[in-house]
Amino acid sequence: MLIVPEHLIADLISAQDCFAAVEQVFAAMARDTAYNFPVIREAIGHADALYGFKSGFDRESLALGLKSGGFWPRNADKGLTNHQSTIFLFDADTGRCRAVVGGNLLTALRTAAASAVSIRHLARRDARVLGMIGAGHQSTFQLRAALDQQDFDRVVGWNLNPADLDRLAKVADERGIPFQAVDLEQLGAQADVIITITSSFAPILQAAQVRPGTHLACMGTDTKGKQEVEAALLGKASVFTDEVAQSVTIGEAQHAVAQGLIAPDDITQIGAVINGDRPGRVSDDQITLFDGTGVGLQDLAVASAAVDLAVERGIAIAVQI
Amino acid sequence: MLIVPEHLIADLISAQDCFAAVEQVFAAMARDTAYNFPVIREAIGHADALYGFKSGFDRESLALGLKSGGFWPRNADKGLTNHQSTIFLFDADTGRCRAVVGGNLLTALRTAAASAVSIRHLARRDARVLGMIGAGHQSTFQLRAALDQQDFDRVVGWNLNPADLDRLAKVADERGIPFQAVDLEQLGAQADVIITITSSFAPILQAAQVRPGTHLACMGTDTKGKQEVEAALLGKASVFTDEVAQSVTIGEAQHAVAQGLIAPDDITQIGAVINGDRPGRVSDDQITLFDGTGVGLQDLAVASAAVDLAVERGIAIAVQI
Repeated sequence: MLIVPEHLIADLISAQDCFAAVEQVFAAMARDTAYNFPVIREAIGHADALYGFKSGFDRESLALGLKSGGFWPRNADKGLTNHQSTIFLFDADTGRCRAVVGGNLLTALRTAAASAVSIRHLARRDARVLGMIGAGHQSTFQLRAALDQQDFDRVVGWNLNPADLDRLAKVADERGIPFQAVDLEQLGAQADVIITITSSFAPILQAAQVRPGTHLACMGTDTKGKQEVEAALLGKASVFTDEVAQSVTIGEAQHAVAQGLIAPDDITQIGAVINGDRPGRVSDDQITLFDGTGVGLQDLAVASAAVDLAVERGIAIAVQI
Repeated sequence: MLIVPEHLIADLISAQDCFAAVEQVFAAMARDTAYNFPVIREAIGHADALYGFKSGFDRESLALGLKSGGFWPRNADKGLTNHQSTIFLFDADTGRCRAVVGGNLLTALRTAAASAVSIRHLARRDARVLGMIGAGHQSTFQLRAALDQQDFDRVVGWNLNPADLDRLAKVADERGIPFQAVDLEQLGAQADVIITITSSFAPILQAAQVRPGTHLACMGTDTKGKQEVEAALLGKASVFTDEVAQSVTIGEAQHAVAQGLIAPDDITQIGAVINGDRPGRVSDDQITLFDGTGVGLQDLAVASAAVDLAVERGIAIAVQI
C-alpha cells in the first residue's frame, strides 16, 4: 500500500494535471464506463460533524475507491482544516487497498478543475473578463484554474463580506491581471465568464443581471437547499453538469427543476460535450451554465494522478497492509 | 495515521477480545448510541468483483469509519484471498484518518464473535453438543469462537462436500473434543446449538429437524436470495438479530418475512437482550434463532480493539497522512 501524505500534494500535482484527470473522468462518465456509487452523508451526532463517502469506479483508468471525511466545524479552533478528506484507492484487479492519499488540497484542486473544464468546453473563446462571486478559501483555487485555462485580461469580484476579496485580488496580482471589486449589477454587465463559489442558501445573482453569451460555472451548491443564482437563469440558459442525478437533487438545478422551469432531460452531462456526442455552446449569444456538484470520481481521478506522480518521483511511502 | 497490517492481526487480537468488542457494539446499537450507515455494494463490471463499504459510528467508543473491499472471485488463482477487506478508522473529534487496518482476518473474527455472542445470551447453559452446518474457511472461526464460549463436549457436523469436514474435525481435535460427521436428521436430533455458515441459496435444515430448546446461529445469509434454514423454522423460533433492517432484507429472516410467517416486529435486536431490556431465552423448550447479517460497526469495533492493542505493544506503524 502506498501513502501520499497531504503535505506532499502541493508540490506533486499541478492544476493542469487535475484538469486533465477531471476532463478524462467526466468523459468516461458520459461513455458509461465510469460511474459514481451512491453518496453516504451522515450527521453523526458528535462534534456537529458531517461525515461520509463519495465513491466510484472508472473502468477505463481502473480508478476504484472512495473519498471519506467530512466537515468538522470546530476544527479551526484546533488549528485544523474544517473540511477533512482522505482518498483511498483500491486495486481493481484484486480488491486490495492500493493507496491512501491526503485529500484536502486535492478536493480543492478537483473542484477548481471542474469549473475550468466547463470554461474550456462551454465559454466563448473570446471571453476576456472573469467574474468571481464568493471569496472564501476555495475561490482562489477556482480563480487560478480559470486563469490557467483562458486568457482573461481582467477579473471582477463580489463577496458578501467585501474584505475577503483581497484573497482574489492577490491571486490576480500574482498573475499580473487587474482585479476590481464590483456590485452584482456591474459584475453581470462586465463578465464573460462567471464562477459562483459560495455556501449561499438564497439566490445571489439574478437572471436579469446576466448578459447573453455569458458562461457560468455554479460550484457552490452541493446540498439540498443551497442556491447561488436565480432559478429563472437556468430556464434561460443551456444547462450542463457533471452528473445529472446530483444536479437535480443537490445541485444548483434542484430549484429550477422543482419549479418546473427545466426538466432533468434538459440538462446535458458535460462529458457528452467533451466526447463530441452532444453540442456545447452553439452560438455567441447563448448563456451556458455548468452546475458543478462534485462527484467521487473526480477525487479518484486526481488522487490516482497524484499517486502515479509520487511513484514516478520515488516519494510515495510504501507500507505493508 | 497508524497502520496495522494484516500479518500482525493474528498475534495481536484474540477471539475473546473480538467477543468483547462485538458484544459492546451490539449493546450500543440497541441503546441507539451506535448506528450503521447505509451499505454500498456494487458489481463493478470488472474482474467479476463485488465491491463496497460497511460503515457506521459508535458514539460510546467513538469508533467511526468503514470497512471497504469486497469479493474478487479470481483472486485465488493469484494466491490471494477472494474476500479482501481494509478497515479505515477516523478520529470522531476531527475527521482525520486515524488508522488503516488489514481487515481479512478481522472480518472472520468478528463474524465468529457474533455467533458466540448469540450463544452466550441465547443458548441453554446446559448445551453440550454443537452442530455445525457448513465447513468452509469461515466455519473454523465460528467453531473456535463457540468452543471458547461454552463447554461443549461434542461437535457434530454436516457439509455439502463431506471431505471439507476435516477442517472442523481438526479444530475439534485441537481442543480435545470429539467430532462426528452426521446427516442433517442426526445433526438436528443431537445438537443443542447449531451454527449454519454456508453460502446456500436454498434451505438446508428443515424446521422438523430441529428439537425444542435448540439455539441456532444462522451466519451465512447476507444477500438477497440466500437461505440456510426452512422459513417455517423462523415461525417456530424466537428470532434475534444484529440489525433488524438487514435481517428482513438480506438476512435469513427475509424469507419468513416475505412469506408472512413473521413480521419485522417479531425480531429482537440482540443488543436489547445484552442490555437486559428485552427477554432472551425464557424457557428450556424454546427455539432461539440468531440471524447474523454482519454490520459495519462490528468491523469498526474489532479494528479499534486491534489498533489499541497495537499501540499498547508499540507495533502500530505511524505514517504521516
